[in-house]
Amino acid sequence: MYSINPYLKKMYCLRCGKEYPVADYYSGCPACAAEAHPVNLSMRYEGEQTIRTDERRLLRYQEFLPYVSFPSLGEGNTPVIETKRLADRFSLQAVYIKNEFQNPTGSHKDRMSPLAVARAVSLNKKCVVAASSGNAGASLAAYAAAAGIQCKIITTKKMNPIWKKAIELPGAELVIMNTPQERWPYMQKMVEQEDWYPVTNFVSPPVGSNPFGIQGYKTLAYELYEDFGDRIPAYILVPSCRADLLWGIFEGFHDLVNTGLLAQLPHLIAVEPFSRISRVLAGEDYRSTFKGDSSATVSIGGDTITYQAIAAIEHSRGGTADIEQREVAAYQQELAREGFYLESSAATILGALNQLTADKTIPQGARVLMVATSSGYKDVP
Amino acid sequence: MYSINPYLKKMYCLRCGKEYPVADYYSGCPACAAEAHPVNLSMRYEGEQTIRTDERRLLRYQEFLPYVSFPSLGEGNTPVIETKRLADRFSLQAVYIKNEFQNPTGSHKDRMSPLAVARAVSLNKKCVVAASSGNAGASLAAYAAAAGIQCKIITTKKMNPIWKKAIELPGAELVIMNTPQERWPYMQKMVEQEDWYPVTNFVSPPVGSNPFGIQGYKTLAYELYEDFGDRIPAYILVPSCRADLLWGIFEGFHDLVNTGLLAQLPHLIAVEPFSRISRVLAGEDYRSTFKGDSSATVSIGGDTITYQAIAAIEHSRGGTADIEQREVAAYQQELAREGFYLESSAATILGALNQLTADKTIPQGARVLMVATSSGYKDVP
Repeated sequence: MYSINPYLKKMYCLRCGKEYPVADYYSGCPACAAEAHPVNLSMRYEGEQTIRTDERRLLRYQEFLPYVSFPSLGEGNTPVIETKRLADRFSLQAVYIKNEFQNPTGSHKDRMSPLAVARAVSLNKKCVVAASSGNAGASLAAYAAAAGIQCKIITTKKMNPIWKKAIELPGAELVIMNTPQERWPYMQKMVEQEDWYPVTNFVSPPVGSNPFGIQGYKTLAYELYEDFGDRIPAYILVPSCRADLLWGIFEGFHDLVNTGLLAQLPHLIAVEPFSRISRVLAGEDYRSTFKGDSSATVSIGGDTITYQAIAAIEHSRGGTADIEQREVAAYQQELAREGFYLESSAATILGALNQLTADKTIPQGARVLMVATSSGYKDVP
Repeated sequence: MYSINPYLKKMYCLRCGKEYPVADYYSGCPACAAEAHPVNLSMRYEGEQTIRTDERRLLRYQEFLPYVSFPSLGEGNTPVIETKRLADRFSLQAVYIKNEFQNPTGSHKDRMSPLAVARAVSLNKKCVVAASSGNAGASLAAYAAAAGIQCKIITTKKMNPIWKKAIELPGAELVIMNTPQERWPYMQKMVEQEDWYPVTNFVSPPVGSNPFGIQGYKTLAYELYEDFGDRIPAYILVPSCRADLLWGIFEGFHDLVNTGLLAQLPHLIAVEPFSRISRVLAGEDYRSTFKGDSSATVSIGGDTITYQAIAAIEHSRGGTADIEQREVAAYQQELAREGFYLESSAATILGALNQLTADKTIPQGARVLMVATSSGYKDVP
């Protein structure tokens, strides 16, 4: 029903580089896993891939995606808006916001779900499953409904009623666990016993989400290339947790550099609720558990990170910013007063801009783009 | 700061045809008002207007809009999605959904606000005001914030907390009245005494919203023309109350017919919570008050209609559908199960499709497009 991309030739490990046939590796790279290093796999394509300028939205980039057809609800082609007031305030040449909340279910996750669901359907799976605090669940529920397959979302009692309704109304089933940690063995059991297809991963420490899905995030980078040409803003701020989006954006830009369309990668900045990635960049083991408060920014919460987060930042000479929970409401309000109503987790981008211009990580006169991952309508008012 | 369109030459009355200089007529056509017929004015352009294919989103259609520059948050260019399951279920050739909930504030109102705010700023007004149950308020608040002017939203105690937050966070002030009817004299007083610029009208019976704003809705028709060429679906279903959107869509299609780009107008169908427009089409006075329940569909509630509603339907050989409140939740769920999570007021489109195919108003094998005006995230879960 959905067609695999004939250019897709191999999977490869982000850490050891080992190549594998195109297939599903739910625990990431088998070789690295055997060394107790959980690492996600990505995809390698061969051939003369081009942007299909006769197509619209994600289909323009089909030759760079694992599937060239997939269920669509109108995802992608989100606008980029320049905010002159923020540029003036922070002494920057330009500040842009990429409105990912204008995706069909109100978040960037709508770039992942179509590809993950296409993979599930092509494997003849009857049910997709994800562990989610909200946005991934709402997105996957909609795309599973559109494709006519079942969907299970594993979460905790803390999920807010706004997301609950958005997940259950399309017909997905919520499975409520007592703790985030209890989700992984349950998901693993159901994947093995019931043949559910996992869109997020169930190993701990995590590797990140389903590689077929993550490939969808590359389209955000391609869209920026179509908007800006080779004048991509030098700094790109991305609210991050296990960094599926950050890695996907990195890979998209990497493709553009490889094909000669782009001279150099922009610096990718992971925006976090507390120090996790930054501690690893400073020397800690990426497989550690990190404690901190993320109660006001659940969509980027969690006490673990991934190898792919570190890889995206190191390869792009990027960085991190940690935004304190007590500051988030003020950033949400400041962005609303520019016209952008973001989920609190997404509003951390303004905190990052504030912090990174103050400490000169982002120099005066630079051009910055902030990814507004999700809508303010996801927060309980 | 924002530039008026040099092609814009006149205002004209929808009912008597009398022409007026381009200006603000808060009570609609003065001549008809003197005869106790409240009627909105629209705009007449002269010259060789074209779609500016080098521009994006609403700016593509700037030559057909009263202002050729305006505050933008990334509105318009919303996707059209074909739903084969609904086409099969209702024995239609094709059913399309136009996802207006993918606008920046989650509703179609984002096509009106940029033009109304541009007008206010060009008149040097310091404050815009609208009476709103939610969506118009959330939209106007965001665009006023982006343009750096004040915004007042007049509503009643019934407004839900989701909209309240979306309106207040950008800095707009909510003015709470005891009844919807109390809103009009208050707005009139503040327009006259405080120079607030009205984006919705304050006369009773109403004429409809600000004509500069309504012109923005024409862009929905132009987008459909760019999607479908001259193969526009024959029936277009639009959740309606005072029918600003319906009239704007009508005028957009009318422009396309006038310029020879389109052979004929599609039939415009107003979807209502209870019989209002249909009673007028059957002979009642359009200035009547109509009683009925709209508690589950507040965005299309209200006990009055407008002349522009009747004009859009009669000129397009269109019609109406009345959807009972107790059925709305089921339609919302059915649409969610196709992947579309709509506000309950918007989900009435599926009820209309059901009703109009059953009674053969829409014949078997027809092509239908439904305008999904607003997001499910606007409803309290």
